[in-house]
Amino acid sequence: MTEPMFDKIALIGIGLIGGSIALAARRGGLARQIVAATRRAETAATANRLKLVDHCGTDLAAACEGADMVIVCTPVGACGAATREIAPALKKGCIVSDVGSVKQSVIDAMQPHIPAGVHFVPTHPVAGTENSGPEAGFAELFDGRWTILTPPADTDPKAVDTVEAFWKALGSQVDRLDAKDHDRILAITSHLPHLIAYTIVGTADDLGGHLNAEVLRFAAGGFRDFTRIAASDPTMWRDIFLNNREAVLEVLARFQEDLFYLQRAIRWGEGDKLFDLFTRTREIRRALIHLNQA
Amino acid sequence: MTEPMFDKIALIGIGLIGGSIALAARRGGLARQIVAATRRAETAATANRLKLVDHCGTDLAAACEGADMVIVCTPVGACGAATREIAPALKKGCIVSDVGSVKQSVIDAMQPHIPAGVHFVPTHPVAGTENSGPEAGFAELFDGRWTILTPPADTDPKAVDTVEAFWKALGSQVDRLDAKDHDRILAITSHLPHLIAYTIVGTADDLGGHLNAEVLRFAAGGFRDFTRIAASDPTMWRDIFLNNREAVLEVLARFQEDLFYLQRAIRWGEGDKLFDLFTRTREIRRALIHLNQA
Repeated sequence: MTEPMFDKIALIGIGLIGGSIALAARRGGLARQIVAATRRAETAATANRLKLVDHCGTDLAAACEGADMVIVCTPVGACGAATREIAPALKKGCIVSDVGSVKQSVIDAMQPHIPAGVHFVPTHPVAGTENSGPEAGFAELFDGRWTILTPPADTDPKAVDTVEAFWKALGSQVDRLDAKDHDRILAITSHLPHLIAYTIVGTADDLGGHLNAEVLRFAAGGFRDFTRIAASDPTMWRDIFLNNREAVLEVLARFQEDLFYLQRAIRWGEGDKLFDLFTRTREIRRALIHLNQA
Repeated sequence: MTEPMFDKIALIGIGLIGGSIALAARRGGLARQIVAATRRAETAATANRLKLVDHCGTDLAAACEGADMVIVCTPVGACGAATREIAPALKKGCIVSDVGSVKQSVIDAMQPHIPAGVHFVPTHPVAGTENSGPEAGFAELFDGRWTILTPPADTDPKAVDTVEAFWKALGSQVDRLDAKDHDRILAITSHLPHLIAYTIVGTADDLGGHLNAEVLRFAAGGFRDFTRIAASDPTMWRDIFLNNREAVLEVLARFQEDLFYLQRAIRWGEGDKLFDLFTRTREIRRALIHLNQA
């Protein structure tokens, strides 16, 4: 038997991501003790009933006492307040991390509360499902997926290496990026697609009128995929859009421009413009499949 | 053994849909003979090599001689010309059908060429994959999916019943709709989602710049689903947008309006507006799951 990487891991927040970290860490034997804390007693009770961790309470600071690794797994908008609350309980040498889908604003919110002698390694596991809450967690969530570390330049390299080793042990591939690059990339590949899926499902619901039953019944191909995406956790996604505002608005403007170009091509019957784009996007899909991501 | 429904079925066009009809009809023993014809010799050779039908040639009219059932399986924009070409070969009492994703414009294009004594029953199997061509066909494509018949008011009821029985025997559920209602419903549930997926994948590709490798590598969740949709057949989809122009432009305008509403909410930090929509779309997904379509 190899030694566990940590004596004690504390998870602040125990939803889909926190629960999955707990289960994957236990699967890998990565810690002697895994505890969690969440603000809602009901969520803590569920986590305890499911035995996701050794113990889940509602006192965030208490959970962090003596922890070698603390991972804040709350929605992005709650990361700052959670860090302020746990700061006094963090022991020297402890690593604090997070799992937020936006990185620069989370760094801005958490960094000021990190005590001297504690290492902060911002992290984003690019994995998830449309389900949320502690019941949604599963040990395989990160297997083969990417986790992105965005450590500020002055972060202790050993702490970054430890977090990288931890995520690899959870089953993930790991890459490192500048926080602002991360936010721009995710705005394109994740945030904009979610915003559009949310919009179109709402539009369809409004438009249906007397045809609403048929709209749902014949919701084939495209629309079904969109409804799945648009079922993702509302709080998490509200926070993402509010906290990655600049990057989302920028890609959204580009998207609108491109959509108007197609709208005009449809109105004027310019089939070649449609055909050219549709051929190009097919190639992009092939490149993705080649990269084993599809 | 029950008698086959038809002595001879002729398929005009033998791509994903035509090929799947052939395989599903054979699986069900629905015809003594199934032939096909397609304009491109290369496609015909592939269909023959795969033994999708008893014989596939390149003479559209010749394939239809003596057929009890002719199904035009070309892209929507080619239905009119194909019908004109096969018209002289159609025997009295023959049923002509199609599989177009748009119905009113296909009716307008095909109807004038249908000879007296031949029955025309426009049909749309709401099924497909992002793959195309004869190799993409498979017998199970229609199992449990919906097929919509949009017969004009004066269509022979017996012919409509026969087409309904045929699609049920292919594994499909069948419903009947007014052609214009069909086009409005599909504009929402299928055409708009595809247009948006095509757009966003193009936008992402343009935006990536020096981050393009990362954009592809971290293409998780939302974006991956969009690339799959945006890999659909370019000719088929160009024709759909050009032939369902009015309905697509109408739903597109509504979508743009709704997207600008969210864009403004993001810019002004109005999280409640985002949260309210995201909560509503989650309910829509639950309704869909309840209908067993997701």
